[in-house]
Amino acid sequence: MAPSLEKTIYIGPFVHSKSLAELEICTKGAIGVDEKGVIAFVERDDVEGVSKKEGWESAKVVEVKDNGFFFPGFIDTHIHASQYPNAGIFGKSTLLDWLNTYTFPLESSLSALPRATTVYTRAVSRTLSHGTTTAAYYATVHVPATNLLADICLAKGQRALIGRVCMNSTLSPDYYRDASVAAAIAASRECVEYCRRIDPSGELVAPIITPRFAPSCTEECLHALGALQKETGAYAQTHISENAPEIALVNELFPTHKGYADVYDKAGLLNPKMILAHAVHLTAKEKELVAARDAKISHCPASNTALTSGCAPVRDLLDRGITVGLGTDVSGGFSPSILEMARQAIWVSRHVAMHEGDHAKLSVEEVLYLATRGGAKVVGLEEKVGAFEVGMEWDAQMVALESVPEGGERHEDGFVEGVDVFGWEAWEDRVAKWLFGGDDRCTVAVWVRGRLVHSTGRYRG
Amino acid sequence: MAPSLEKTIYIGPFVHSKSLAELEICTKGAIGVDEKGVIAFVERDDVEGVSKKEGWESAKVVEVKDNGFFFPGFIDTHIHASQYPNAGIFGKSTLLDWLNTYTFPLESSLSALPRATTVYTRAVSRTLSHGTTTAAYYATVHVPATNLLADICLAKGQRALIGRVCMNSTLSPDYYRDASVAAAIAASRECVEYCRRIDPSGELVAPIITPRFAPSCTEECLHALGALQKETGAYAQTHISENAPEIALVNELFPTHKGYADVYDKAGLLNPKMILAHAVHLTAKEKELVAARDAKISHCPASNTALTSGCAPVRDLLDRGITVGLGTDVSGGFSPSILEMARQAIWVSRHVAMHEGDHAKLSVEEVLYLATRGGAKVVGLEEKVGAFEVGMEWDAQMVALESVPEGGERHEDGFVEGVDVFGWEAWEDRVAKWLFGGDDRCTVAVWVRGRLVHSTGRYRG
Repeated sequence: MAPSLEKTIYIGPFVHSKSLAELEICTKGAIGVDEKGVIAFVERDDVEGVSKKEGWESAKVVEVKDNGFFFPGFIDTHIHASQYPNAGIFGKSTLLDWLNTYTFPLESSLSALPRATTVYTRAVSRTLSHGTTTAAYYATVHVPATNLLADICLAKGQRALIGRVCMNSTLSPDYYRDASVAAAIAASRECVEYCRRIDPSGELVAPIITPRFAPSCTEECLHALGALQKETGAYAQTHISENAPEIALVNELFPTHKGYADVYDKAGLLNPKMILAHAVHLTAKEKELVAARDAKISHCPASNTALTSGCAPVRDLLDRGITVGLGTDVSGGFSPSILEMARQAIWVSRHVAMHEGDHAKLSVEEVLYLATRGGAKVVGLEEKVGAFEVGMEWDAQMVALESVPEGGERHEDGFVEGVDVFGWEAWEDRVAKWLFGGDDRCTVAVWVRGRLVHSTGRYRG
Repeated sequence: MAPSLEKTIYIGPFVHSKSLAELEICTKGAIGVDEKGVIAFVERDDVEGVSKKEGWESAKVVEVKDNGFFFPGFIDTHIHASQYPNAGIFGKSTLLDWLNTYTFPLESSLSALPRATTVYTRAVSRTLSHGTTTAAYYATVHVPATNLLADICLAKGQRALIGRVCMNSTLSPDYYRDASVAAAIAASRECVEYCRRIDPSGELVAPIITPRFAPSCTEECLHALGALQKETGAYAQTHISENAPEIALVNELFPTHKGYADVYDKAGLLNPKMILAHAVHLTAKEKELVAARDAKISHCPASNTALTSGCAPVRDLLDRGITVGLGTDVSGGFSPSILEMARQAIWVSRHVAMHEGDHAKLSVEEVLYLATRGGAKVVGLEEKVGAFEVGMEWDAQMVALESVPEGGERHEDGFVEGVDVFGWEAWEDRVAKWLFGGDDRCTVAVWVRGRLVHSTGRYRG
């Protein structure tokens, strides 16, 4: 059940995606949000008149100040909350040695609940502060710690898919793996049930079946997880085709399958409720299969660059009609910010373009779509979040930019917002400045389903 | 003459480059800086004893708090101060259309001194806040505005090379170019003399001869600028081999030369006091020529990616013994932060490695070297700045990181520093976390020649 809120009218400029190519910039808007956090009206013309709307006369008013605008909350379609303390720590490693050197030891240590509390509390606070209103999380193999992550997201009010990581193959370290297929399935079932008990509506927190990736699971385990997904109707998430040695390993481990995607497909896991992270090196046939199954893809540009995995062919995926969102992939990715990922998606698309031509380039509009509506489609919430439309829920952030005064001298209190607007910029350019120069300082307030879940000292609601 | 300062002992951890491959992390140090801003001692063992050193008994003490460390100030070897308002505004453009669409109109507008005051004041404040203690600036063609930039740097205490941009070719727009070779040289000479008049020692502000790039200048103009450099002994800076259409244009404009580097060489401009920005597509023969002439290279990774110019082969340049530093190239580059450039240099090196193998990868140590000592060599200040050694000057920043408390809850005043340290990280990992997650919030104080030139509310000197 949604919490009961004060009816609120959000007044000021708002920016959101109409489609992949089109960003709407409404420089004078008013959005009414009802007691359930649902958008009741979006006014673009008679903004002054909204306070006289029947039933809205005594509504609370929240106004954008500081050169800013409302923007939909970000969707992080792939993030390992358990790896947050390692953000930025990867050296010159690539996927398989990175897992053994940095990742498994840290994840394993989260069996201790005090440590898990510290890490997950911080990870959720941080992602909220960066404007992430929905996240598809990987936790660890541990049931209590995974359930703790669900508790924290529910308490802090972040929409989250909570994934207990399954990994039963002997390729996983002996100190950190599921003891058997039966144990893996039982533990996963426990986490599914826990999420559904603490949030029966599933409006905020829902479970997600999470085979780590094909090399971590036996074929039997993958099939059992496919069956568990079918039985529970839950979402699923995993990794696919991230780097060359990993793909070679999969081909070696599953010699009778027709490639990486086929491993998941045969297990019943390639379906519209599957989120595949990376998809850097899929073959044309695999892309066709992913498209045919309507499985979703989480593009993780920062991670793919940092670990030298490669450049995901996002334009090609989009041209094939595949649904794509953005993922931070902390801590393969170094940042918990989806705004940073939108930038990184631009950079990766430029590197693809250097070899394959300008068609590959993603625009400002396109990466902001991937960060919001694209991500919403990946996690199955496209009717509810990702844009400002009547009937959608108020998952939003208030963005503030800094006005440079004449003479250019800084304010007494220093540079707070981080993005300088001189005043002569067109609105499109202000949005671009935010994309390329912004950070969590610009996100002065964040709401999920109408509830204020984060704000900075600069927010005066 | 250096201003007279209070003798100061800087106590706490410090981090700096010993060489390209080696970063020294001294977890308990004390650095004494004399009244002229010169490092008198660097103590690594008996830190407690420094206050009893003869002559230092009553010295001021500045201590690192907040999980931080001292780090040398950054050197930005290529930045267009005049383009700062356009940071983040470039769309899908590439070099030559970017110049005409975004750059020339903005630069041209700085003929108005009130606008130049606002832009330059802000640009210098911002770069200082990001820890840039030395910058090689491009201004515009306008003499008064260029001289104003010199005044602002001197007043704010930033070391700067001030370049009046020369561009007399008819390829430059008619509303924004030098009227003739004679006019270009006269104007450049005026700026050289102005800098030398306001800072006769050249300790803070010095002039730099600045042919924009070969397509902007006639051969006669380039030769005259080469002669002016020789006559004045000043540094010089320009662009080279940034993208393919530009190189084709140079070959077309200078058909009797043996390529882009040769155009500058024939003009007498390829010498140890020349800073070449970009150098993305130099041929092997050109690299040999650059190495033979000991000209320096400014690597501008953010710009090269944003404008789809290509990936500079930094490892190859270093292997050839060429001196390389980092440049933000605002606003081809979207950020005035050299810390961001160090990250971007890592990303570009990963993209080179995807095609050419692991040898191309730059390490954390290497990019931090490029950001400090490498840059110092590029601008000819390697004896004075870039590291903490006795006899060098105190160009430094105090870096603060955030300690995550047990339980993970945020401080009352929110996330101030932006980089979370959990407490179990090795020192090397803390530095990596700063590199990949840090921003200007981490830079709580900045000194140039011992003078405090920037600080945030968190600095308690």
